[in-house]
Amino acid sequence: MKFNPVEIIIKKRSGRKLTKDEISFFIESYLADKIPEYQMAAFLMAIYFKNMHPDEIQTLTEIYINSGNKITFPAEMKTVDKHSTGGVGDKISIVLAPIVAACGAKIPMISGRGLGHTGGTLDKLESIPGFRTDFSEKEFKQMVQEVGFSIISQSQELVPADKRIYALRDVTGTVESLPLITASIMSKKIAEGAKNLVIDLKVGSGAFIKKMDKAEKLAELLMQTGENMGQKVSVVFSNMNSPLGNYAGNALEIKECIEFLTGQNIPDIYKITKILAEEMLLLTEIARDRNEAGKMFRKVLQNGEALECFRKFVKTQKGDPQVCDDTSLLPQAKFQIPIISSKNGWVKSINTQAIGYALIEIGAGRKTIKSKLNYAAGAYLPVKVGDQVEKNSEIGIVFCDDETAGKIVADKIAKNYAILSSQAEYDEKYFREMELIYGLESGLDEE
Amino acid sequence: MKFNPVEIIIKKRSGRKLTKDEISFFIESYLADKIPEYQMAAFLMAIYFKNMHPDEIQTLTEIYINSGNKITFPAEMKTVDKHSTGGVGDKISIVLAPIVAACGAKIPMISGRGLGHTGGTLDKLESIPGFRTDFSEKEFKQMVQEVGFSIISQSQELVPADKRIYALRDVTGTVESLPLITASIMSKKIAEGAKNLVIDLKVGSGAFIKKMDKAEKLAELLMQTGENMGQKVSVVFSNMNSPLGNYAGNALEIKECIEFLTGQNIPDIYKITKILAEEMLLLTEIARDRNEAGKMFRKVLQNGEALECFRKFVKTQKGDPQVCDDTSLLPQAKFQIPIISSKNGWVKSINTQAIGYALIEIGAGRKTIKSKLNYAAGAYLPVKVGDQVEKNSEIGIVFCDDETAGKIVADKIAKNYAILSSQAEYDEKYFREMELIYGLESGLDEE
Repeated sequence: MKFNPVEIIIKKRSGRKLTKDEISFFIESYLADKIPEYQMAAFLMAIYFKNMHPDEIQTLTEIYINSGNKITFPAEMKTVDKHSTGGVGDKISIVLAPIVAACGAKIPMISGRGLGHTGGTLDKLESIPGFRTDFSEKEFKQMVQEVGFSIISQSQELVPADKRIYALRDVTGTVESLPLITASIMSKKIAEGAKNLVIDLKVGSGAFIKKMDKAEKLAELLMQTGENMGQKVSVVFSNMNSPLGNYAGNALEIKECIEFLTGQNIPDIYKITKILAEEMLLLTEIARDRNEAGKMFRKVLQNGEALECFRKFVKTQKGDPQVCDDTSLLPQAKFQIPIISSKNGWVKSINTQAIGYALIEIGAGRKTIKSKLNYAAGAYLPVKVGDQVEKNSEIGIVFCDDETAGKIVADKIAKNYAILSSQAEYDEKYFREMELIYGLESGLDEE
Repeated sequence: MKFNPVEIIIKKRSGRKLTKDEISFFIESYLADKIPEYQMAAFLMAIYFKNMHPDEIQTLTEIYINSGNKITFPAEMKTVDKHSTGGVGDKISIVLAPIVAACGAKIPMISGRGLGHTGGTLDKLESIPGFRTDFSEKEFKQMVQEVGFSIISQSQELVPADKRIYALRDVTGTVESLPLITASIMSKKIAEGAKNLVIDLKVGSGAFIKKMDKAEKLAELLMQTGENMGQKVSVVFSNMNSPLGNYAGNALEIKECIEFLTGQNIPDIYKITKILAEEMLLLTEIARDRNEAGKMFRKVLQNGEALECFRKFVKTQKGDPQVCDDTSLLPQAKFQIPIISSKNGWVKSINTQAIGYALIEIGAGRKTIKSKLNYAAGAYLPVKVGDQVEKNSEIGIVFCDDETAGKIVADKIAKNYAILSSQAEYDEKYFREMELIYGLESGLDEE
């Protein structure tokens, strides 16, 4: 062997910068099964604690990309993608992609499955009867061209290195490492061929990243790596202190997306979708300015073009497009269990992550990669931070097929709302901040 | 599963104290092959960075002990053991055990093999023709009773948990973790049945621990864990800035040990052996005070009782006792290559660890657990920090069977002596400190 793997682990453990050669050796040997899983696990944990220099991240990203195919689109095509760092109730891709496609952009979106407390876009889409996400690269390109967007699963051919290392990170407590997150996101997004990228960086109790300072560090690494690799990147910081929208759960969220595209106003979904759509239209230069981008957004939402685009997408990906007209065709849960507030007062905070984990117990999410989902399971969670609630009133509903489990989950969820009982404690500024979309760091601003 | 292993990894990763239940679950599931190596590797690296509370260390130590047999000796037997944290040229057990046994103590010593830059007592002993270390527990107890001491290898039955986890630590860069070192040392020493324990905690360029502050932390953990588990423990801090004694290499060190027991004065070996012997005689209450302990030490060394005890030990463990009278019966190297100083001046420091690693290349040590040793290989290294050397003079000798490799190693070793060329830089206080046996932290003082 060219290097001693233990020495590389120890070098990273002591916080020293690894050379391009050392990183390539370690990762490539691992992928060739010459370095065992346990050495990679120790290496990943050392990276978690000691981080990586942008040069190291770039090397890792390049190795990831070169481990598989790279999809390309014609240079003149206005391709753009959105990536979210994930949250509870985050269904934004499903409404955002048809809106931006209806405005003329092309969105080649390769998405993931849910794991842990956050849901996955693919799982949500697969709750539509017949819907498929396992298309070939050729079919994917064709769908992007014809429909305007496509959302498929990551094939074995695309960044297999990331796929394999992500699976290991997931079971070794090394998911939350900023350099590893950066390489994982950037490699996938560069390999899928979109020339522009908007990142929805979620911050708060239901996100992987709880604090703004950490979010800012990640944004910096993403922008820096994008720049180093010739990719246009914008980052939007968005709030994840309350579940996003009113529903969490696969089929329930599809229903909510269809309602949103049909014209229903869901304030938090509207707010974040609009800002992301604007960024995508600006990066692709489809809109000249934010004002024009906003107008285009409202137009395709109001005139039904976004919904039409979504319908075409569902049909093309072999789902039943009738769900767009009749959401009762989606899987329906047997039981609805009310979630009851135990207190009068104002919701000071929501442990959104704990709610995400609780929902796993009725099959709305996955405990392990092999867990089977119950598409109908989930919850109606309309209460946000700052809302007033009454004792013994219904603050939500659990949808489930197992009544006993559902009752336990409803109780658990209720306990994760911290409620201020005295009006004196109410601080409007605090609540405004908790609901804020924090702002954005745009690749455009740097030009 | 009772717990989610990833959640336990993450809890440790974030620096929180684990419950007894969580630690037991994690370690026991690993030993039962229900938690894979890669999760254990990540857990170990998280412990490396976030350490463990004394309660956690105690739990780990108990699990280690309970994973196998525990040897017991009659309550009235004055059992004591010494453990060294390892260094280059550290042959102290081999002279210390017969001395202390000759004074009336019983020393049940279970020792290790060399790995990395430090040698192993078992390897050294096995360079004696015929010598065996693979005895049963019953034979071990009998030898301790009859000879006064025995040095054998760790069997599969004794703390198998530590054995397995140590092997994983070794290949994942997690050896140097103070809580893991503590549990590893204390479990082995408690399981082997000695009621008293003196720890030779080596500090300096040739030790795993380079700095005094870290050594003090480890000493505290060792004493604390000893106290929690009802074991009497003394810690001696000793110098490892120069190789210990004049030789490094398996058969060469046996030769040196026999010469020491025969009456040759080797100052640094004498100094550390005496202080350790005194501690052992005090802990077992064989000596009433340090003065009496010192007298007993000198007596058995001068009247030949210690050498006789060693001879009996070699014979009992199936080695050729004639080596005690004729050290040329030990394996002899084909070539002797001089190590030449490139400068005039005073030795300011020695990269003792690098010398240890260099010696691996001629077979004096192991690169991996499977490496084959060359018992005859090693070096004569009489020069210590503070010594004056002359340009082009011989400052040592490499003993080897491969002349080409030996010349390379001799050059490498020479480069690891940092030499002050100007007398103005000479600072006597610095050199005194570099040679100091730093002191001791005795369990006795606390009574």
